[in-house]
Amino acid sequence: MPNAEPLLIVGSIAFDNLDMPSGMFHDVLGGAATYSSLAASLFAPARVIGIVGSDFPEEHLDALRTRDIGIDGIERVAGKTFRWHGKYSSDLSSRVTLDTQLNVFADFRPKIPKGYRASPFVLLGNIHPQLQIEVLDQIDRPRLVAADTMNFWIAGEPRALGQLLERIDLLVINDEEARQLSGIQNLCKAANDIRRRGPSRLIIKQGEHGALLFDKSGTFFVPAYPLEEVKDPTGAGDTFAGALMGYMASRGASAESPHALRRAMFFASALGSFCVEDIGPKRLLRLTRDDLSSRMDGFLSLVDFGGSLALD
Amino acid sequence: MPNAEPLLIVGSIAFDNLDMPSGMFHDVLGGAATYSSLAASLFAPARVIGIVGSDFPEEHLDALRTRDIGIDGIERVAGKTFRWHGKYSSDLSSRVTLDTQLNVFADFRPKIPKGYRASPFVLLGNIHPQLQIEVLDQIDRPRLVAADTMNFWIAGEPRALGQLLERIDLLVINDEEARQLSGIQNLCKAANDIRRRGPSRLIIKQGEHGALLFDKSGTFFVPAYPLEEVKDPTGAGDTFAGALMGYMASRGASAESPHALRRAMFFASALGSFCVEDIGPKRLLRLTRDDLSSRMDGFLSLVDFGGSLALD
Repeated sequence: MPNAEPLLIVGSIAFDNLDMPSGMFHDVLGGAATYSSLAASLFAPARVIGIVGSDFPEEHLDALRTRDIGIDGIERVAGKTFRWHGKYSSDLSSRVTLDTQLNVFADFRPKIPKGYRASPFVLLGNIHPQLQIEVLDQIDRPRLVAADTMNFWIAGEPRALGQLLERIDLLVINDEEARQLSGIQNLCKAANDIRRRGPSRLIIKQGEHGALLFDKSGTFFVPAYPLEEVKDPTGAGDTFAGALMGYMASRGASAESPHALRRAMFFASALGSFCVEDIGPKRLLRLTRDDLSSRMDGFLSLVDFGGSLALD
Repeated sequence: MPNAEPLLIVGSIAFDNLDMPSGMFHDVLGGAATYSSLAASLFAPARVIGIVGSDFPEEHLDALRTRDIGIDGIERVAGKTFRWHGKYSSDLSSRVTLDTQLNVFADFRPKIPKGYRASPFVLLGNIHPQLQIEVLDQIDRPRLVAADTMNFWIAGEPRALGQLLERIDLLVINDEEARQLSGIQNLCKAANDIRRRGPSRLIIKQGEHGALLFDKSGTFFVPAYPLEEVKDPTGAGDTFAGALMGYMASRGASAESPHALRRAMFFASALGSFCVEDIGPKRLLRLTRDDLSSRMDGFLSLVDFGGSLALD
């Protein structure tokens, strides 16, 4: 990663209780910032902004540190860490939230350490849009700012979200969120509407069906990598966003090239495919760049049609 | 199409009543053989085997003939043509069959005219698997045989379908059919199971989410073309299969090349995207090769990432 520049990631750090068809998993390390930073760290130095309680074991922080993830922005306060409890359907295609305990996350106000304020690449994970804006207020002229959001903020904080959209370059959301945010069923029309509100680039994730990019050069599609076994989709979207922005940060100044974001989507999809192969972030924690290289070969084969689509 | 060889297509010819969110459309020309042959005729000479009643207007046959589609194998008998009545959901993502009248189709026994028996490319549209076998019995050593089927035959005629699978090269079905046929939820595992039963190549259509090919060289994916407006999904799957096999027939002997079927999938997806742009086969009936060429440019842009996925 000779040209890699640092990527600042803000988001939740959590304990998840995962009720899977394969069994019940308690106190699994989770949260958007966790998944995103683990994925990003394959490509570029990641710096996490988040909050944990006094119950958060040092070994989890060590796991991040070992992967060259900066944890100086992870605040530790008295109280309990954010907890989420979800239950998946038998085919893993849907899930319900059984319980959410915000705990120390309820009063989270992101503070960017001085040494992080010049981060050229910024990923604003899914938190209150007002807090996402507060992060941006503390950063010196970033080169590329991406953000995620969710149904809760789309419905409940449209004004703050509208202000955020005007200040970001790239929004990364899923298909249902795009439909809800725009009020438009058709994804192409929804994308036009959302891009008019601010972000020049929009990525719409479609889970196991891949992801679409809408930018000034048109529409681009990256498939999901077909897997024989999926164990746990938790965190796949955050992993996608983390790898996407990690790859962009790894390009440094050449992240501006027209194909950079399109290539980044393949790496993002690849990391997403690893994420779902084991419970929680287990697969990401043991993932190597060699593993990634061989999956990229598989991706090349998945989309290789010999390069020409001439009619005759 | 200098090397194009003829493609034989067997399937239904129908009148459809389409209850769409945009309105009610009566007596629309339909049926798998209609959509497939219209799509195929952009690439290669198509020959249709089917049956119509005395109510079938000559102008519909003329419409096929004008597009260089051979209609000598369309039998006309006393009685009424096959009729289907379907109603679509408001977002067009699902439909219910309100009425099916087999009429003359109930006693259909495909008879291949002598001049068609040497057809090197064969597309067996979705009819009783025993009839699909009877078609193959009348063809001299075809080079490439593709077949479609549906839930009704998978559940009701497993034995005949099993015999058919042993005699075809390529099965083209949708994701739900693949799951039902294999009894396996995961599509990669389902594909392995189905390919073990006969067809060396399997295409699993996923509607608006594209299509997967499983063959001896691995797995390949083609996206659906993102559209700003979809009017009517009727016949899109048959259009996909017709264009796929039409493109293969247009390659003639070079259809054996490793990339031919992968490229064919792009053309198939492109024709499917045209099909849904208007009611029934209206868009296909006015489609030109120039229209197709410019959509292929759009497809190239949709999947263009600059060709390299190297890590550094």
